[in-house]
Amino acid sequence: MHNHHHSEDHLESSEFITDIVIGMSDGLTVPFALAAGLSGAVSSNTIIITAGIAEIVAGSIAMGLGGYLAGKTEIEHYQSELKREYLEVEEKPEAEKQEIRDVFADYGLSLETQNLIADEMAKDKDKWVQFMMKYELGLDEPHVNRARNSAATIGISYVIGGLIPLSAYLFTENPHSGLLVSVALTVICLFVFGFFKSKVTGQPPLAGALKVTFIGITAAAAAYLVAKSFDHLF
Amino acid sequence: MHNHHHSEDHLESSEFITDIVIGMSDGLTVPFALAAGLSGAVSSNTIIITAGIAEIVAGSIAMGLGGYLAGKTEIEHYQSELKREYLEVEEKPEAEKQEIRDVFADYGLSLETQNLIADEMAKDKDKWVQFMMKYELGLDEPHVNRARNSAATIGISYVIGGLIPLSAYLFTENPHSGLLVSVALTVICLFVFGFFKSKVTGQPPLAGALKVTFIGITAAAAAYLVAKSFDHLF
Repeated sequence: MHNHHHSEDHLESSEFITDIVIGMSDGLTVPFALAAGLSGAVSSNTIIITAGIAEIVAGSIAMGLGGYLAGKTEIEHYQSELKREYLEVEEKPEAEKQEIRDVFADYGLSLETQNLIADEMAKDKDKWVQFMMKYELGLDEPHVNRARNSAATIGISYVIGGLIPLSAYLFTENPHSGLLVSVALTVICLFVFGFFKSKVTGQPPLAGALKVTFIGITAAAAAYLVAKSFDHLF
Repeated sequence: MHNHHHSEDHLESSEFITDIVIGMSDGLTVPFALAAGLSGAVSSNTIIITAGIAEIVAGSIAMGLGGYLAGKTEIEHYQSELKREYLEVEEKPEAEKQEIRDVFADYGLSLETQNLIADEMAKDKDKWVQFMMKYELGLDEPHVNRARNSAATIGISYVIGGLIPLSAYLFTENPHSGLLVSVALTVICLFVFGFFKSKVTGQPPLAGALKVTFIGITAAAAAYLVAKSFDHLF
């Protein structure tokens, strides 16, 4: 696998950025919308900040711990499929060779070439299994440190993202002015972050920035309207 | 692609279940933890319910709309790579044929077989491009309806999951008893849901049930402690 070193480095850095993007986009959006929603229904900044802090703690743990356990599950799944594939290659090599042929029959290769590929591939069991893992099952080997790194990155990104909209309520007197500052601050951050996110994922940056901002504003507006009308019931 | 019909059906149903799992697990966890956190810091169920409703609206829109736009991005990305691959096959066929050979050189196939594969594959441009998309770029064709379905499924699952822990505060007198009922109710649901989730994703059900329950309890306990100590500052 030494010849894949470069592409794995690339993969690792893009997964790191993906984790930041996942954590920060949710971190900016949900605490922002929650605080906006409460701004229409309660009269004290303290309640909004308390609820926001509780949400940031809950959300970062749910996403971070969730990411960690999902990563561990991915590794376990890969290992168990790898073991099964080695067993199948050992116990029913003819069926496994037929699976190689089937892959290439789908691409219109002649029977002669299919046989050649299957026979040559079967000479090296490790490469054979490697091929079946990737091309039959579509599984890439997960990084062992990935689960732990992913959890920390997503959790921390969520906290940083969430503190931005909430900070507005620390420096204002009432929920109404807190909301105005929070909206202004967060919309700018959503736009800048959306722009950056789209750049690193190779999408058109302006359209991406508008998308991310649109999600945040929609969530905040809906939460505001629902919380306000709900609060009138009491 | 008609011969892939069965596996695509399977994929579609597993993506639907994955969406439910994503939406409900976050829906159960975050509003539960937020409500638990507020239970240690405020004195009225109304505030907890209002905050919980605002969170459910915000979270379901962020996840649902986020899922929708992510699905659309996936389709756009596939289409643009497909276009580029057709262009490359047309404009620099030799380089693309070399890329086919490189794939099989990595698996230890002889130069003769590599040439045979490349020559036969190049006879049908559609299959050639299909091969490059899947084996060079690792991209599967996304479903066109996937983005819309995914958004609706994740959003609705989040709302249903979130209403369970919150319902406890509707039928109790104060945050303290609300918290007790909510914890009992939600822990049962997290366990049952975790069990079901693990079954459909092929993991050991008991371990999976314990994992999901553990995430929820950890998030709720952390939110409770942080909100309580934070509230003392005011």
